[in-house]
Amino acid sequence: MAGSVFGNILRISTWGESHGAAVGVVVDGCPAGLTLCEEDVQQFLDLRRPGQSLFTTPRREADAVRIMSGVFEGRTTGAPISMMVMNTSQRPADYSAIAACYRPGHADYTFDAKYGFRDYRGGGRSSGRETIGRVAGGAVALRLLQEMGISVTAYTKSIGPVSISPEKSDDDEIYRNAFYMPDADAAARAEELIKEMMKEQDSIGGVIECRADGVPAGLGDPVFEKISANLAKAVCSVGAVKGFEIGDGFGAALHRGSENNDPFIPDDSAAAGRPGIKKASNHAGGVLGGISDGSRICFRAAVKPTPSISRTQRTVTKDGVETDINIRGRHDPVIMPRAVVVIRSMAALVIADALLMNMTAKMDYLRAVYQKLPR
Amino acid sequence: MAGSVFGNILRISTWGESHGAAVGVVVDGCPAGLTLCEEDVQQFLDLRRPGQSLFTTPRREADAVRIMSGVFEGRTTGAPISMMVMNTSQRPADYSAIAACYRPGHADYTFDAKYGFRDYRGGGRSSGRETIGRVAGGAVALRLLQEMGISVTAYTKSIGPVSISPEKSDDDEIYRNAFYMPDADAAARAEELIKEMMKEQDSIGGVIECRADGVPAGLGDPVFEKISANLAKAVCSVGAVKGFEIGDGFGAALHRGSENNDPFIPDDSAAAGRPGIKKASNHAGGVLGGISDGSRICFRAAVKPTPSISRTQRTVTKDGVETDINIRGRHDPVIMPRAVVVIRSMAALVIADALLMNMTAKMDYLRAVYQKLPR
Amino acid sequence: MAGSVFGNILRISTWGESHGAAVGVVVDGCPAGLTLCEEDVQQFLDLRRPGQSLFTTPRREADAVRIMSGVFEGRTTGAPISMMVMNTSQRPADYSAIAACYRPGHADYTFDAKYGFRDYRGGGRSSGRETIGRVAGGAVALRLLQEMGISVTAYTKSIGPVSISPEKSDDDEIYRNAFYMPDADAAARAEELIKEMMKEQDSIGGVIECRADGVPAGLGDPVFEKISANLAKAVCSVGAVKGFEIGDGFGAALHRGSENNDPFIPDDSAAAGRPGIKKASNHAGGVLGGISDGSRICFRAAVKPTPSISRTQRTVTKDGVETDINIRGRHDPVIMPRAVVVIRSMAALVIADALLMNMTAKMDYLRAVYQKLPR
Amino acid sequence: MAGSVFGNILRISTWGESHGAAVGVVVDGCPAGLTLCEEDVQQFLDLRRPGQSLFTTPRREADAVRIMSGVFEGRTTGAPISMMVMNTSQRPADYSAIAACYRPGHADYTFDAKYGFRDYRGGGRSSGRETIGRVAGGAVALRLLQEMGISVTAYTKSIGPVSISPEKSDDDEIYRNAFYMPDADAAARAEELIKEMMKEQDSIGGVIECRADGVPAGLGDPVFEKISANLAKAVCSVGAVKGFEIGDGFGAALHRGSENNDPFIPDDSAAAGRPGIKKASNHAGGVLGGISDGSRICFRAAVKPTPSISRTQRTVTKDGVETDINIRGRHDPVIMPRAVVVIRSMAALVIADALLMNMTAKMDYLRAVYQKLPR
Repeated sequence: MAGSVFGNILRISTWGESHGAAVGVVVDGCPAGLTLCEEDVQQFLDLRRPGQSLFTTPRREADAVRIMSGVFEGRTTGAPISMMVMNTSQRPADYSAIAACYRPGHADYTFDAKYGFRDYRGGGRSSGRETIGRVAGGAVALRLLQEMGISVTAYTKSIGPVSISPEKSDDDEIYRNAFYMPDADAAARAEELIKEMMKEQDSIGGVIECRADGVPAGLGDPVFEKISANLAKAVCSVGAVKGFEIGDGFGAALHRGSENNDPFIPDDSAAAGRPGIKKASNHAGGVLGGISDGSRICFRAAVKPTPSISRTQRTVTKDGVETDINIRGRHDPVIMPRAVVVIRSMAALVIADALLMNMTAKMDYLRAVYQKLPR
Repeated sequence: MAGSVFGNILRISTWGESHGAAVGVVVDGCPAGLTLCEEDVQQFLDLRRPGQSLFTTPRREADAVRIMSGVFEGRTTGAPISMMVMNTSQRPADYSAIAACYRPGHADYTFDAKYGFRDYRGGGRSSGRETIGRVAGGAVALRLLQEMGISVTAYTKSIGPVSISPEKSDDDEIYRNAFYMPDADAAARAEELIKEMMKEQDSIGGVIECRADGVPAGLGDPVFEKISANLAKAVCSVGAVKGFEIGDGFGAALHRGSENNDPFIPDDSAAAGRPGIKKASNHAGGVLGGISDGSRICFRAAVKPTPSISRTQRTVTKDGVETDINIRGRHDPVIMPRAVVVIRSMAALVIADALLMNMTAKMDYLRAVYQKLPR
Repeated sequence: MAGSVFGNILRISTWGESHGAAVGVVVDGCPAGLTLCEEDVQQFLDLRRPGQSLFTTPRREADAVRIMSGVFEGRTTGAPISMMVMNTSQRPADYSAIAACYRPGHADYTFDAKYGFRDYRGGGRSSGRETIGRVAGGAVALRLLQEMGISVTAYTKSIGPVSISPEKSDDDEIYRNAFYMPDADAAARAEELIKEMMKEQDSIGGVIECRADGVPAGLGDPVFEKISANLAKAVCSVGAVKGFEIGDGFGAALHRGSENNDPFIPDDSAAAGRPGIKKASNHAGGVLGGISDGSRICFRAAVKPTPSISRTQRTVTKDGVETDINIRGRHDPVIMPRAVVVIRSMAALVIADALLMNMTAKMDYLRAVYQKLPR
Repeated sequence: MAGSVFGNILRISTWGESHGAAVGVVVDGCPAGLTLCEEDVQQFLDLRRPGQSLFTTPRREADAVRIMSGVFEGRTTGAPISMMVMNTSQRPADYSAIAACYRPGHADYTFDAKYGFRDYRGGGRSSGRETIGRVAGGAVALRLLQEMGISVTAYTKSIGPVSISPEKSDDDEIYRNAFYMPDADAAARAEELIKEMMKEQDSIGGVIECRADGVPAGLGDPVFEKISANLAKAVCSVGAVKGFEIGDGFGAALHRGSENNDPFIPDDSAAAGRPGIKKASNHAGGVLGGISDGSRICFRAAVKPTPSISRTQRTVTKDGVETDINIRGRHDPVIMPRAVVVIRSMAALVIADALLMNMTAKMDYLRAVYQKLPR
């Protein structure tokens, strides 16, 4: 089964390993006529690129994306959009030790169990570089959503016990600190924590929050293609994610119905000619019955600590013999900053796909487009 | 897009509304030669059927399933298995009030927003009765997994603040109490809480936990078809679920790498001729890199409080005019007991599908089956 | 893999065997707001129902369809439409002889080879009754196309050497004769031929032609989802079909480019404000590069002779021992009349699906619908 | 909807336009452990490459394929296999005339109708270069089938009225002549015909035949995923194909049941322990009820004449104004030789996919693989 294809109408097919020739993505199903250039994609790849700060792997990579197909004279043609980033710093020698034994917290063992052998260089397909294809694909989705007046934002909500303060949260702050936190004070405390982790040759987990604004009511299908279910899959398909929650999430498990239900109220700001309806609160996180309700969509992802740590760890060899492992090289003590843009990309892909799927939700939409069909 | 189809190889297509003629499911892709009878399915439907206790809706329903196709002389034939449960107690008169306004916490508004109108009788497609198709489909998956030595168990972990104690947890207890809790003490405390909720015309949320034992290493595909990602989608596609976490889940966000990584150790119990490898702990919840690692798979779902409560609530009419709503009839003060078997069913569908998808993971498997092909 | 699911957005899932309890279909992905009643479906089922004439199996069946879900107050709701026809005349005793040996031209042997055993009663899943689900699903597609001003017609073009004359062809004649031929003279000659076949305990093949009018230019996607490729699959998935051709088809293999190319010419009848363009001829059959060109779509299906014949035939038992077989009961000497409505249904499903897929072909369509989205 | 993705388990995603940077394919779902190198792919690309003879476009292209991912130490890893061929001879200036008007027989008009504009350089996505991705993907499928003892062969059966003689047919001859005909005499006559076409600035159609040997009984699913239906779609998705037939195809429409039915007979050559069964004839073309029957699979594709001809043709501009068009450059007077390897590739993809889908057909296969699963 095709494990590297994602999406229903807007469908991405990612490829590439950490130490192969390149990594990339084919985006199929993008409507024709969307303006798109390499810079639209590059800006998001730059956000996940290592080397910007003390706290991410200093391996220098340009990660310059090239659009290979599907765009003509600055607009998408309806054909598959193939994008590629060459792998420039291939140093397989660094990884020879990994071939013989299993790193705790990594997928080395499970790849061997599944496939009988593995490309052991830098994690192969489970490497962080696999996310380049997701981010490039997500950039196309973000471009599409932007045209429809929908924005998607993501940031680090917490690193270990250090959490942002909702009161001090300011989106302009996100890209001013190395942790992509919208709260400068929290970022400063996170920096102290991370320095401690590095000193102790350890790593730490965290939580990423993501919001979508401007999403019209009606996106997502009932039953299995709930927009919340597809967000859950998209987010939990990202390497280190161990949990997903939308709206009040696990908090709702402690709530009473009388406090968790969001009352509907009239919406005076609605356009003339439409019944103006909004919710007085948003415990639901913008989704009712799997369908967007017109409020902000808001969800969180739990990210585990980086499994690669410098300390000596217990493990076994491929043959089941006990051994110690020291994973060489510099490691990110925290996954969050890189993963923020990946989560945002996956969310954008799901919402854009839901927008496209919604085009056939009712006969009125068919009739509206019918007027424009050549015949 | 087809929102009522789930699965890759083992694929279910559910149908039916709360107050239509019947509800049902078509299961396509089940291998031929699996023994299956109606009782195999009925036993799971009985677990979600209302009327067993004080704490679930007293509306009596037999919910007797009929297998309409795909089984011949007690075994599956490889053809689609169609299963159906007639809706016996159709009382549309009860629901006339709902037609005119939007119940808070329900999908009434979003259905109207998406489709322009809705089948307002009892929630239509977003009714709890939709899950009958899931449970019937899940029963086929559970039968298949049983043949492969894999078991899937689910239970209520907590109701509001009342949580089971891991020390006192006993699977034999699960079906002895109305809340499907594996801890009799917790169930007794939950009963007190629920009585209070009923008195206060309110409802309460909770957490369901699900475990799969006997899952071989290697199930699930890297990247988008991670078994954890598919579990997340499956679980978050269930009506009232607001969160999903696997292994330590959101707890992992607070952990250090040195405590969160599960060390690999030799496994002396392994069959002769294989390298015996297991993990010394299971923070990962049985999945590494989206692929099962041979440990117990363990995940949790956050369930919101029942949105239907007897108290008067604020809302608006379809035309956006403020109004009060009183939802008539008896309501479950808690969703948990009914949802437990639904979560278990969805987990079984995902794991069985992953087992089938894994059949083509490597050439060795093709060669093993090749010996058996007629030519 | 799910072999009984067809379609991308408009997706049908058929189920049921010849001698099971019922046969049916679940249609998922139909837009909400389409008027639909049982009679809309029944009229097409009646066209494939045996018992109308001397030349089709006299087994009497009502084949009354019941819509079980997805329609509320006369309109589709966007939920899956489940439809069912009970099997009333179950006589398993008739088929006991078939269980032990393989009928030539039937799928008995290949079912055993694939699944290890088979439901031998009346062909099981490869029975003609399987097409009831297709026709019921096709009826929904035909209803949708009708709303969009698209019509789909099918008829018998030839039975053995007896072919309709294009000059005498008259659509009004189609349902006036037992062979569904649009030419009364040809139908009279076909009747003589069929009487001869019955006397000789034999059967005969034929060709079905199908046309779609009013199809706008632009349906079908380039590369794999060509509308012609999907028609080919749809048509060749019908039991006895051995060939498919569109436009001049196999005739084009003998043509020169200068005669096969259809010149483009101005179209004075086009609506004001559009460039009026049409083709001076239609060798292409309404499809260029897999995309509809605004001309009539026209294709043909080659249908083999009914494999069930009354004569004694050579075959083997399940254990490979030579034997003779006499297939008891009355058999249709020709498959055509029943298959005509099946081919028409499959064509309608493909065209309706292409219409839905086309809704996301360009940004202009998204913008047109965007105006109508609630936000 | 994603029009450039093909296959269920073995899934290819092709990309690239005639005059973009490159063309390529991502193959997802290939089992791990298949030996594969670039030469395995290059040999098939060389068969479709122009420049080999007088009768194909003399534009020189190396078409050197590069495997970018999914292969490690000479074996597939289970990860997506990305393959790419750079476009070296990009001369957009040659195509400026095409931008303004519609070439008869080409997809220029339908692309504009669908997408609003088009990449007019060399046909864009409907160019023959699109097939490079198919052939590269097909090469992986052919490698897989070879391991399973299955071979797929294709050749030109006829060019216009010049047809091969079944008696003189010799597979060794296929690649000895420029037309890929297995009959040297026919190839000589075809050469005369083609010279005449070139003199007359015209082109001619033809028929391609394809055979698969060694296919075990049981591949293909009943109902919609018939192996014959998937072959029909695969073949009719190739640019110039206007028809598909399997076995006796359209000939069967003239047959009687008594001659068309293939009798089953004992097969003495079968391996011990199995019931040896084969067919005495093969009118069916190796497929019964959509499932392979163990005989040779044999089908044909009708290919239209090359639409690009040097003569002046009538057409219209984008604005619907009548004009004449002279398509500059050298054109292939016949599509056949290039298309032969494309048809073969598509057939291989379908058969390999059916082989993988068949892995879950029965419980016995699950049990056989179960023995090998790590647990």
